[in-house]
Amino acid sequence: MPQDGQPFQFRTVGDGTGVDYTGTFSQEEVQLALRNRGMPLEALRYSVTPTGLHYLLTHFDIPDVDTASWRLNVGGLVSNPLNLTLEDIKTFPVRSSAVTMECSGNGRALWSPRRLTQPWLLEAIGTAEWTGTPLQGVLEEAGLSADAVEIVFTGLDQGVEGGQVRHYERSLTVSDAIREEVLLAYEMNGEALPPQHGAPLRLIAPGWYGMASVKWLGAIEAIGDAYDGFHNRRAFRFLQGPDGEGEPVTLMRRRALMVPPGIPDLLTRTRVLDAGLVPLIGKAWAGRSKVVRVEVSSDAGETWADAELGESVSPYAWRPWSYEWLAKTGSHVLCVRATDSEGEVQPLEQDWNYGGYANNGVQRVDVIVT
Amino acid sequence: MPQDGQPFQFRTVGDGTGVDYTGTFSQEEVQLALRNRGMPLEALRYSVTPTGLHYLLTHFDIPDVDTASWRLNVGGLVSNPLNLTLEDIKTFPVRSSAVTMECSGNGRALWSPRRLTQPWLLEAIGTAEWTGTPLQGVLEEAGLSADAVEIVFTGLDQGVEGGQVRHYERSLTVSDAIREEVLLAYEMNGEALPPQHGAPLRLIAPGWYGMASVKWLGAIEAIGDAYDGFHNRRAFRFLQGPDGEGEPVTLMRRRALMVPPGIPDLLTRTRVLDAGLVPLIGKAWAGRSKVVRVEVSSDAGETWADAELGESVSPYAWRPWSYEWLAKTGSHVLCVRATDSEGEVQPLEQDWNYGGYANNGVQRVDVIVT
Repeated sequence: MPQDGQPFQFRTVGDGTGVDYTGTFSQEEVQLALRNRGMPLEALRYSVTPTGLHYLLTHFDIPDVDTASWRLNVGGLVSNPLNLTLEDIKTFPVRSSAVTMECSGNGRALWSPRRLTQPWLLEAIGTAEWTGTPLQGVLEEAGLSADAVEIVFTGLDQGVEGGQVRHYERSLTVSDAIREEVLLAYEMNGEALPPQHGAPLRLIAPGWYGMASVKWLGAIEAIGDAYDGFHNRRAFRFLQGPDGEGEPVTLMRRRALMVPPGIPDLLTRTRVLDAGLVPLIGKAWAGRSKVVRVEVSSDAGETWADAELGESVSPYAWRPWSYEWLAKTGSHVLCVRATDSEGEVQPLEQDWNYGGYANNGVQRVDVIVT
Repeated sequence: MPQDGQPFQFRTVGDGTGVDYTGTFSQEEVQLALRNRGMPLEALRYSVTPTGLHYLLTHFDIPDVDTASWRLNVGGLVSNPLNLTLEDIKTFPVRSSAVTMECSGNGRALWSPRRLTQPWLLEAIGTAEWTGTPLQGVLEEAGLSADAVEIVFTGLDQGVEGGQVRHYERSLTVSDAIREEVLLAYEMNGEALPPQHGAPLRLIAPGWYGMASVKWLGAIEAIGDAYDGFHNRRAFRFLQGPDGEGEPVTLMRRRALMVPPGIPDLLTRTRVLDAGLVPLIGKAWAGRSKVVRVEVSSDAGETWADAELGESVSPYAWRPWSYEWLAKTGSHVLCVRATDSEGEVQPLEQDWNYGGYANNGVQRVDVIVT
């Protein structure tokens, strides 16, 4: 395999600005949309997303990892470097938790101009029951130094990005990494972690957008400075153009989504349903915060009514909501929005950024009632 | 829910011809690409596709079926109509079989002009181990009449297509339906059938494109004439324009695919790898026929060399192949093609049709060797 750092240039997609202004999509984006996998929004009906329906973003390729020879290296600023088999990791305390995860690019393709990469609309979400061990215990076993500032997680997946060969690699600050909910996970929904979700071992960072939960973990390294790698410093930043430093993308912004009611038109996915009382249901989440209010609109966000809130199956899982809508004959645009425990309300439209990150503008569902 | 037959018209996508001539993609197609799920081609390394990586085409929505109250009705030209629970169906003889399934639209988006619907490139494939009971035994139990000509399978999924509300519904001739490999399946890869693959019960018609394997079965009806429904008579036909009768799409055409070697560029998915001996691997299949030859080209199909063939895990599963490629520095286009037991060779380019069905033109993989 090529070495990390080796430079490559490929053909230009679009006009070379990295974003699309035409409102149409390129074959390269469609290719990504077909490799990556959204959760069809009718699956919002499930508290825990059935296996095989959770969203899936594979940054490079799904690597071919042999679990028998695989090891997790824990090194850097530690007094007792570790080299662990999966069986070793299973001797640490076991913890299971339902966690809602959303891709940081969810909503990207609803913006114009649109960054030329995975063109998510609203389906890059899911909730799974993850089983593993708290990262904190493994770092303790390794004797994490008081000088450590950040923890770097290196995936075994490799590809070319930003003109160079790289592994996928992200860091968390020590204080974020040692939170009790952060897991090294080896099971998903009660089964061995499947290859596409990071087998044999992945990080789960509840509350964060999915980019933090590094898959196919090969190494964990404690370092004494702020990490300077590509996937923290260049990618996943709020920018207004291709250059600059900006702010990092971190926790999931508040958002509610609904199961589109009725039945779909095959191509446009416009919904059709009969007049009368229509149960609307869905889920809402807000990073590490709690969703305290969900409102529904049937007039494209002009007026809002409170939905009823249910209870989450875990502190880091989405909260169910429901609303009885009296549907009258005609065309409607249904919307839903969440408010979190900090009092922040999900916006009708979110401010644009160059990378197309964290667009939590409200869902719009076109409905025809007959 | 609206009634089958109720007419609806929706906004026009594109120029109204039903196909795209621009080479760019619409948001409606991207929306479908994000709902439906391709198998990333690196998963061709597995004989049986891991759960959650099999391709998935959901024609309308995934319906919310309550297994406890669900029944399978078997009626029409039978002497003993049946109304079966899932537990009843599990008392019939159990059969498991690994079956390769490909969507009839696989390859559609490689053609120009391109039909405006799900824009598959090459990833609409997968192989699963299905467990259920042969349909034949259930039809015998129902006392299938000698007057029966076709068997109609009705799914519980509903939507608007061709301007009308419909259920998804397809038929097989009696002779195709009573073949021993045709299953009513309630398990996939050893687990209960997941919602998105047709729970609680689906048809599995090995050798056919996926449209024949009706999901979320509600009813099976024996009829005395050729079935005249939309999904047999209008959709899934080889046509040169929007009108006409054409020939039906039936069994999967011969095709070989490879795992793209090396590592990818993030956006273009161009492959990068080091010079030297490179193991190329993949799978090949051919409807009900056997693949007898697989050839590889590293010069875009100018010259071909024989790959080594392995054995299928079942008669209806894809056949593995491998080839040691001596990769030299430079740019290459890798191709692979299958020949079946009838001596038919997969074409470099397949003849176009309006619906974008059964495009088995050979895969092209752009590779840069350093």
